[in-house]
Amino acid sequence: MSEAAKVFRVGLLGNGTVGSAFQELVAKRADAIAAEVGFRPEISGVLTTRDGDFDQILSESDLIVELIGGTEPALDYALRAMESGKHFVTANKQLVSRHGEQLFEVAGRVGVQLRFEAAVGGVVPAIRVISETLAAAHIERVHGIVNGTTNFILTAMERTGASYEDALAEAQRLGYAEADPTEDVTGADAAAKMAIIARLAFGAPVHVDDVPREGIEHITAEDIAYARELDLSLKLIGSAERVDGGLSVQVYPAFLFAGHPLAAVSGSFNAVTIESPDITEITLSGPGAGGSQTASAVLGDVISAMIPPPFNPPPAEPAVLVTDRESSFYLHVEVADHPGVLAQVAELLGLQGASIRSVVQKGIGDDARLAMVMHPVLESKFRAAVDLIGRLDFVRSTPRVIRVIGETFE
Amino acid sequence: MSEAAKVFRVGLLGNGTVGSAFQELVAKRADAIAAEVGFRPEISGVLTTRDGDFDQILSESDLIVELIGGTEPALDYALRAMESGKHFVTANKQLVSRHGEQLFEVAGRVGVQLRFEAAVGGVVPAIRVISETLAAAHIERVHGIVNGTTNFILTAMERTGASYEDALAEAQRLGYAEADPTEDVTGADAAAKMAIIARLAFGAPVHVDDVPREGIEHITAEDIAYARELDLSLKLIGSAERVDGGLSVQVYPAFLFAGHPLAAVSGSFNAVTIESPDITEITLSGPGAGGSQTASAVLGDVISAMIPPPFNPPPAEPAVLVTDRESSFYLHVEVADHPGVLAQVAELLGLQGASIRSVVQKGIGDDARLAMVMHPVLESKFRAAVDLIGRLDFVRSTPRVIRVIGETFE
Repeated sequence: MSEAAKVFRVGLLGNGTVGSAFQELVAKRADAIAAEVGFRPEISGVLTTRDGDFDQILSESDLIVELIGGTEPALDYALRAMESGKHFVTANKQLVSRHGEQLFEVAGRVGVQLRFEAAVGGVVPAIRVISETLAAAHIERVHGIVNGTTNFILTAMERTGASYEDALAEAQRLGYAEADPTEDVTGADAAAKMAIIARLAFGAPVHVDDVPREGIEHITAEDIAYARELDLSLKLIGSAERVDGGLSVQVYPAFLFAGHPLAAVSGSFNAVTIESPDITEITLSGPGAGGSQTASAVLGDVISAMIPPPFNPPPAEPAVLVTDRESSFYLHVEVADHPGVLAQVAELLGLQGASIRSVVQKGIGDDARLAMVMHPVLESKFRAAVDLIGRLDFVRSTPRVIRVIGETFE
Repeated sequence: MSEAAKVFRVGLLGNGTVGSAFQELVAKRADAIAAEVGFRPEISGVLTTRDGDFDQILSESDLIVELIGGTEPALDYALRAMESGKHFVTANKQLVSRHGEQLFEVAGRVGVQLRFEAAVGGVVPAIRVISETLAAAHIERVHGIVNGTTNFILTAMERTGASYEDALAEAQRLGYAEADPTEDVTGADAAAKMAIIARLAFGAPVHVDDVPREGIEHITAEDIAYARELDLSLKLIGSAERVDGGLSVQVYPAFLFAGHPLAAVSGSFNAVTIESPDITEITLSGPGAGGSQTASAVLGDVISAMIPPPFNPPPAEPAVLVTDRESSFYLHVEVADHPGVLAQVAELLGLQGASIRSVVQKGIGDDARLAMVMHPVLESKFRAAVDLIGRLDFVRSTPRVIRVIGETFE
């Protein structure tokens, strides 16, 4: 099937971290995409600071991907590409938040696709959900954690009690913050993203320079310690909402009550909560922009631009449905509390390769209970052990088994 | 602009809770949709158990929305609609999980759109994100809480210590569970939804009858109490994953560790976590299916079927950017701890209409601190009060202010 697929030529501007990840991803996924949508994406040319000619790349491409950042020459390339009838995909939040109206006008007039999911939320499909899923809904408010660097720093301060300066240094050491962190910690990055989100959610032009912002540079460990006593959690929040017949779009550090859907978003993750009276709310969360995540969002946009999103899935391939598999389990046993009870239970489990990860023992005499969580084990073996445990003379009722998920998440 | 929009005729099958909500929503949003996509949706006919003729409705419609449920006559209607060249949108999980391959074949052959977002996750756009956003990604695993009724019951058991029977009765009283809750509590509803998700995520045919399932009927308050001691949270989980060269698709109650992205999803909310090596993971959450939520998902599908999703937004309308607005705040003040300090601070706040919601006072003598959270107040008034507080002779440094979000979420 993929041999018959037409080639879809992608011209790439920029060859940094994201550009390299994008080239790798295209190579890895080209066959699957060809099979699914009937077009095979191929990189037709790459423009770097040293090599390549924009006009030649443009003439040999069906779509231009812009990953150079900044507004010049990105704006010039964007306009020339779209005026030439080529689709344009970008991860450039400055470009879209400063020149969005001009770009939308050209795309609409020429009839090409302009897509920029990667400019906003890492892998979180905020633009797509606002533009497509909620096309039918009246959006009242969007709250977002749209900068992974600041969320990483604030999470570290909350967990370790570190100062802002120490948490920033740790983020820089681990690659979550740049050597010059200004764009992130002042809220400038988040402001550009919120300007784009507000434009799409409310249909009103919002320029990044119209978005008031406060950063996290002045947050102290003490603020966070006090806030914890009040059951609050500190995040750098971007908010865009309808208010008093107008709009409010801002970025500021805010404390969230524990029940807020964004309160549990930690580390370098991003998340967006979209509120509408028709649907209550939707929350989307995922890792903030890393090279491969941003590349994946860019490729998603490229595929959507190839053809209208393929909704009818391709013919199915038969697959094996596996039923006996490795899993972690919770086991609850009512026992008469003789010496050695736990040892005998553990031995039967051990004979099947099941080892105990944690255990709680409660009660005494004929009314004792063991509740334990196992390390991962093949289900059939674990069930065999439980069957034997159920026959032990000191066991008072049928043992109870429930699966446990999430060992890798601790 | 909307006068010029072409009419897009929607034939509606079924007039129950969702059908009525859908008709209301179409009436309410028709103008906005016409302005945005150039087509105005209109209900061209409604088939109920008493009234209407399917063939006549079909001949007068561009698209059929099926909200009658069950597989017969829904399957017959679906096939006849698509064979006649009409798009088909459904909220019917039984239809898609039992007859998906037949439906996909007809839609692909005839070249019409078949959409069923509302069959899976309430307002959570799981189908769209899997089919479009992640078209470029290799999906390894999907974990979902896809049944709001059971999540409501389990959350109630966890929070109140109630038995399964009492929590179910409460859910029935509040309208979260039906008089006959079998379909929900046995996991049958979740199994149908996971069959659909697995089909799209992995491209393999999965019939609902192939999905092993356990329900929540046998969960006891005691299991949940013990689990809490082990820092686990109980959910009815649908899992679909690649394993050992095949697929595993199952529904079962499972304990989640506190760090798992689904552990915090409570009440009648649904959520889906999609894992892929390219993107790590995306989690989507929102309310489970209610009438208006399901209607909103159906209308989103109808709009997508009208035309390829409109990505270039319409021309922007200018809007007022509001900067001074009502908000809740955290205020931190370092004070010398004389009698009456808190009273004076509270009085200055009160004069501006700001009242204290909670307060923590720490330290003694010249090193005391007040940390408080305010009820919502207009920002300019609050800032004026803080300015005056900063000038009080017992205040030792500039007061610190941070916004607080989420009062309505407690």
